[in-house]
Amino acid sequence: MKTIIEPERKDWTRILKRPAKSFYDLEGIVKEVFSDIKLNGDEALRRYTKKFDKVDLSKIAVSKAEISNAEKKIPETLKDAINIAKNNIEKFHKSQTIEKKIIETSQGVECWQESRGIEKVGIYIPGGTAPLFSTVLMLAIPAVIAGCKEIVLCNPPDINGEINPAILYTASLIKITKLFKVGGIQAIGALTFGTESVPKVYKIFGPGNQYVTIAKQFALNKGISIDMPAGPSELLIITDKSANPVFVASDLLSQAEHGIDSQVICVANNINVLNNIEKQLNIQIEELPRKDIAREVIANSKFIYMNDMQDTIDIVNEYAPEHLILVTENNDFYIENIINAGSVFIGNYTPESAGDYASGTNHTLPTNGFAKTYSGVNLDSFTKKITFQKITKEGINNIGKTIEIMAKTEGLHAHKNAVTVRLTSENNVNYGKSITR
Amino acid sequence: MKTIIEPERKDWTRILKRPAKSFYDLEGIVKEVFSDIKLNGDEALRRYTKKFDKVDLSKIAVSKAEISNAEKKIPETLKDAINIAKNNIEKFHKSQTIEKKIIETSQGVECWQESRGIEKVGIYIPGGTAPLFSTVLMLAIPAVIAGCKEIVLCNPPDINGEINPAILYTASLIKITKLFKVGGIQAIGALTFGTESVPKVYKIFGPGNQYVTIAKQFALNKGISIDMPAGPSELLIITDKSANPVFVASDLLSQAEHGIDSQVICVANNINVLNNIEKQLNIQIEELPRKDIAREVIANSKFIYMNDMQDTIDIVNEYAPEHLILVTENNDFYIENIINAGSVFIGNYTPESAGDYASGTNHTLPTNGFAKTYSGVNLDSFTKKITFQKITKEGINNIGKTIEIMAKTEGLHAHKNAVTVRLTSENNVNYGKSITR
Repeated sequence: MKTIIEPERKDWTRILKRPAKSFYDLEGIVKEVFSDIKLNGDEALRRYTKKFDKVDLSKIAVSKAEISNAEKKIPETLKDAINIAKNNIEKFHKSQTIEKKIIETSQGVECWQESRGIEKVGIYIPGGTAPLFSTVLMLAIPAVIAGCKEIVLCNPPDINGEINPAILYTASLIKITKLFKVGGIQAIGALTFGTESVPKVYKIFGPGNQYVTIAKQFALNKGISIDMPAGPSELLIITDKSANPVFVASDLLSQAEHGIDSQVICVANNINVLNNIEKQLNIQIEELPRKDIAREVIANSKFIYMNDMQDTIDIVNEYAPEHLILVTENNDFYIENIINAGSVFIGNYTPESAGDYASGTNHTLPTNGFAKTYSGVNLDSFTKKITFQKITKEGINNIGKTIEIMAKTEGLHAHKNAVTVRLTSENNVNYGKSITR
Repeated sequence: MKTIIEPERKDWTRILKRPAKSFYDLEGIVKEVFSDIKLNGDEALRRYTKKFDKVDLSKIAVSKAEISNAEKKIPETLKDAINIAKNNIEKFHKSQTIEKKIIETSQGVECWQESRGIEKVGIYIPGGTAPLFSTVLMLAIPAVIAGCKEIVLCNPPDINGEINPAILYTASLIKITKLFKVGGIQAIGALTFGTESVPKVYKIFGPGNQYVTIAKQFALNKGISIDMPAGPSELLIITDKSANPVFVASDLLSQAEHGIDSQVICVANNINVLNNIEKQLNIQIEELPRKDIAREVIANSKFIYMNDMQDTIDIVNEYAPEHLILVTENNDFYIENIINAGSVFIGNYTPESAGDYASGTNHTLPTNGFAKTYSGVNLDSFTKKITFQKITKEGINNIGKTIEIMAKTEGLHAHKNAVTVRLTSENNVNYGKSITR
């Protein structure tokens, strides 16, 4: 790792700079796959699945039998764990429901907001060696709570044409039934255009490799919404002498095992604390199956000594970490002053992995500095708010003059007239006669 | 207008199709201006302002003297109107503040969300013949309530190098002081990269012509967030015999005067109602200063006869109008079943222009079908939510096993270990010794 002592403000941007990635060389293939799927639908999906996933599928949709078989393959201990996590995630995301509040802004003028679930959403779950059923929980649970009517899940099949039973079990537990064996660019293309098997959706959620990331940007350009721009995962920890270095090291390593592009930063107001964490890192890293990845990430990590609390929170807000762990005697100061972060973990007994799996918060979070403008996935991500207004005759009398003056000043006479005809109407049934001033 | 009787579902997509627009021929100029501004800053801004706005500016920033002079130029009646609108918009947007709710998902596991204002936001107000001070109210008021620290407003100067006093007065009333005389592509470029005068921001809001629309898409590709994709304004009205045709016609015309690409649709379960509205349109249109524009829009408008209420709401949800006016005996049915709309106006005395100016709701709304996934601008647009979690030793004992099983199944052993070291620690100070299972 690199240890940096009290960096000057002018150097912060350089020190905090994330490695830049250019995706331009992938655009050609994404464009090609998208055009093909738009034109050839399922046939194209089967062809790409054969090419990339090495399997010849007869049916792209997962059958009911496959779903019910999955349940038998899952150990009871895993089922219990998934159930506990599901309950916590449900509790927290249900608490995000907004109540309808009718506001009388002027007498006779009532305004309110109501939330509606986005009708059609797509959830992409990447493939790979391990089944990411935790991401099924994180994306499908709020979609169901939001009342999304059609929830479509795509996951690449294995070489036998099967979806991992943990994914199927988790989806079925949340009552997601539209599951498709398709991955990568072709999955995002299918959700964008729709095919004979896969329904077109309005918004696409979920992580993925650089192909999926580019494909989601393409979907966005085709008028489909996406959850957020993707990037490598990140963790920043603020520590002081109250932090347990064994715990801090374990958290840094849990971030470091994700992939060689993961970002790890540790800030402390005490050099001994940093040294103790480093010692622990060296001990714990040896016992990890993914130690080669973790070692590379730790080698690129940054340990920053910063004495001043305001400087510390300023540099953190400048970086805008996806995950922020606070283990200091002054956690309340940092909670109050943090502006840019995805999810915050407070105290020695709150590891990041709790939020990744089971505390109840969402693990789909803004990376790459997007915490400056984006929230992590939450109930809002699956809904949109409609505003309503209901004005009485008294109400339009109260605000009508205001509207007339403003519309006239903006040169919009028909806008003014829409009020004028109402102000000058003797009653609300005045058919067949034009009333304009 | 075109009257359509009970269209079949299979024809809805075609009937509701909005005119497609290709912006590809504008990309070259946007790209050129962006590169120029990134490289040459203020000098480039001055050059483009001279070229497009025909004025040679010495200072790009609006001075304090200009702001205080503006107040003297505004009639008291307009000041009063702006004040009333401001109060209503403030009341409604303040009501959108979320309260912190701490949820104990499992014993010892507390999760909550907190909102933070986006630190740096840009507001673009277009130029043209009339000063759009109402858009200043709609964008600056929620930005201030959200606690955005730096609010930057850009508006193109007139031929004398001045900003309309109504814009300056309104901005100053809301305590916006960073005002710049720059418009079009160059304004969006300046907010994207920052120049000597204009600060770089994290998110850009505001309407504009097709150049501004493309420039905002470019900003998005540079990692700057934007409020929403833009498109021509739209109004759909659902009426029955309870609707006053004079009022309905005035509302359709207020939409029609915006521009020749405005969209106007009127649905009724009664042909006489449609006929009466048409008669009123023909009378009222003659008295409008912008009757040429309105006539062209009305000629392209659609009058749809639909008898069934469910069919009616289904076709409306399929169209997803920016503005929806309900003037029927069954408004409650439509309120309950509307899923896709920007803002809804209920009853004979609620003209769309009320929401455009003074009822309190926002007038920056999703067009072009984006109401299927986007909300209109509201307090959320200027904030992002951070999740927090605080777990006690008891809490990690309660959910630790769950996390361990899930992490192990996903093949993330360091994630599991971050819990294991905590579960097996005798106390929270256990320095210098690695504890792993």
